[in-house]
Amino acid sequence: MEPISSNKCFGGWHKRYSHQSSVLNCTMEFAVYLPPVVSEGKSVPVVYWLSGLTCTDENFMQKAGAQRIAAELGVALVAPDTSPRGEGVADDADGAYDLGLGAGFYVNATAEPWARHYQMYDYVVKELPELIEQYFPVTQQRAISGHSMGGHGALTVALQNAGRYSSVTAFSPISNPVDCPWGKKAFSAYLGSDEKLWQEYDASVLMAKGGDVPALVDQGDADNFLREQLKPEALQKAADKSGYPLELRLQPGYDHSYYFIASFIEEHLRFHARHW
Amino acid sequence: MEPISSNKCFGGWHKRYSHQSSVLNCTMEFAVYLPPVVSEGKSVPVVYWLSGLTCTDENFMQKAGAQRIAAELGVALVAPDTSPRGEGVADDADGAYDLGLGAGFYVNATAEPWARHYQMYDYVVKELPELIEQYFPVTQQRAISGHSMGGHGALTVALQNAGRYSSVTAFSPISNPVDCPWGKKAFSAYLGSDEKLWQEYDASVLMAKGGDVPALVDQGDADNFLREQLKPEALQKAADKSGYPLELRLQPGYDHSYYFIASFIEEHLRFHARHW
Repeated sequence: MEPISSNKCFGGWHKRYSHQSSVLNCTMEFAVYLPPVVSEGKSVPVVYWLSGLTCTDENFMQKAGAQRIAAELGVALVAPDTSPRGEGVADDADGAYDLGLGAGFYVNATAEPWARHYQMYDYVVKELPELIEQYFPVTQQRAISGHSMGGHGALTVALQNAGRYSSVTAFSPISNPVDCPWGKKAFSAYLGSDEKLWQEYDASVLMAKGGDVPALVDQGDADNFLREQLKPEALQKAADKSGYPLELRLQPGYDHSYYFIASFIEEHLRFHARHW
Repeated sequence: MEPISSNKCFGGWHKRYSHQSSVLNCTMEFAVYLPPVVSEGKSVPVVYWLSGLTCTDENFMQKAGAQRIAAELGVALVAPDTSPRGEGVADDADGAYDLGLGAGFYVNATAEPWARHYQMYDYVVKELPELIEQYFPVTQQRAISGHSMGGHGALTVALQNAGRYSSVTAFSPISNPVDCPWGKKAFSAYLGSDEKLWQEYDASVLMAKGGDVPALVDQGDADNFLREQLKPEALQKAADKSGYPLELRLQPGYDHSYYFIASFIEEHLRFHARHW
């Protein structure tokens, strides 16, 4: 693990690192925020943040304003990149923003040419937490959040790993990827034509089966992607069917941007803190 | 004035506009944040934010997290660009980051080829506030803040216009530009060789003459530019000499980044609110 940069922030530290990922077969960068209490020798829980299409580890750390609340609550924040990176990593032939680099969709790819590197599910669920828990003063208390593609990632990861995460929240998640253009494009590329496999990565399909990881979802009603891509109504229907503990809130006037995330990230972090 | 974008944020609105500037002879973009209380028909004071080298109106609005506090205090935020822009606007021949585009230094240029467009002092002091006060529900209560080159801008603008600003704050300002590499390079280009003219734009020279606009300055002690470029000790010496109401704070461990600004912007906005 190689340090890239370090910035003091709200009395704690924002740090970036690179490391060789054996799951993704490439060099990855990630960011971690360590709250001030860490300097006193305390270990803290971790909230993992999964970003949306085109993002890296930097967008959330620079734009969400989450460090202020993490500092107060005494929680670490960890933000991975959104896809494998570097020379030799497959990308969309046309350089589309919604497939390939910056668009890993938090699945384990089974189809070519993606399978060698695009194993973001295992990276986020296993390799990255192992690294974090080995090298940083954190407990094994984990929660997970994300935005858009990362909201899809956070929900599916939490739903498939109930024991590993105490709570999950999402902003504007791609709630039913098997039934929207972004999801169909990505899943058919990464997972091939077996739609049964797609369902393992669909938050609405998974939530309909039930579960007990408390979930909070915020969705802006002025979000351009709401109707065609995000479909929170599918998630609500799934929760209603299975009695899942989902709180879904439609926020009037808010769009898909980080201005929306910044406005409500405090409530999301406090939600996690109530469920450690 | 043409709208570019609009995002709901902390119950208020972040809006970007372009307009034809008659002072700068080009089309300019700026951002304004209107707090929620504006929707109830109230007029609010304005804090102007001047950004540092290479920035546009977007850096502060995306990275400082100021909207949360502005929403609570009921204050508007206005962020101009850092130089004139567009075709025909002079730039440094080598594309240096510290001269020309993105580096207007908030002066009225008198030397060629800069004088036609680089009139950022008049733009910030006169044209932009007139526009804001004409088109937005704001009072004539004004305060001003900035970072690095923009900290220099905020301090010099407030010191030269005591009646127009009720308070001034700065992060990591270029405190004594007549005596540092950034300042000497920019002032000799924009203002020519008459160093007497330079002094009108030097916060330490101006503060030594006295004044009564309350000033708060935060400076990180891990800032790479501290010793060679920023020189807060010159500002402190000037304030000591004239009895100027300056509160200068050295913040241990903090650097020159927006992570530093985000950590203390709340205190700066509350400082302004105490002095309306």
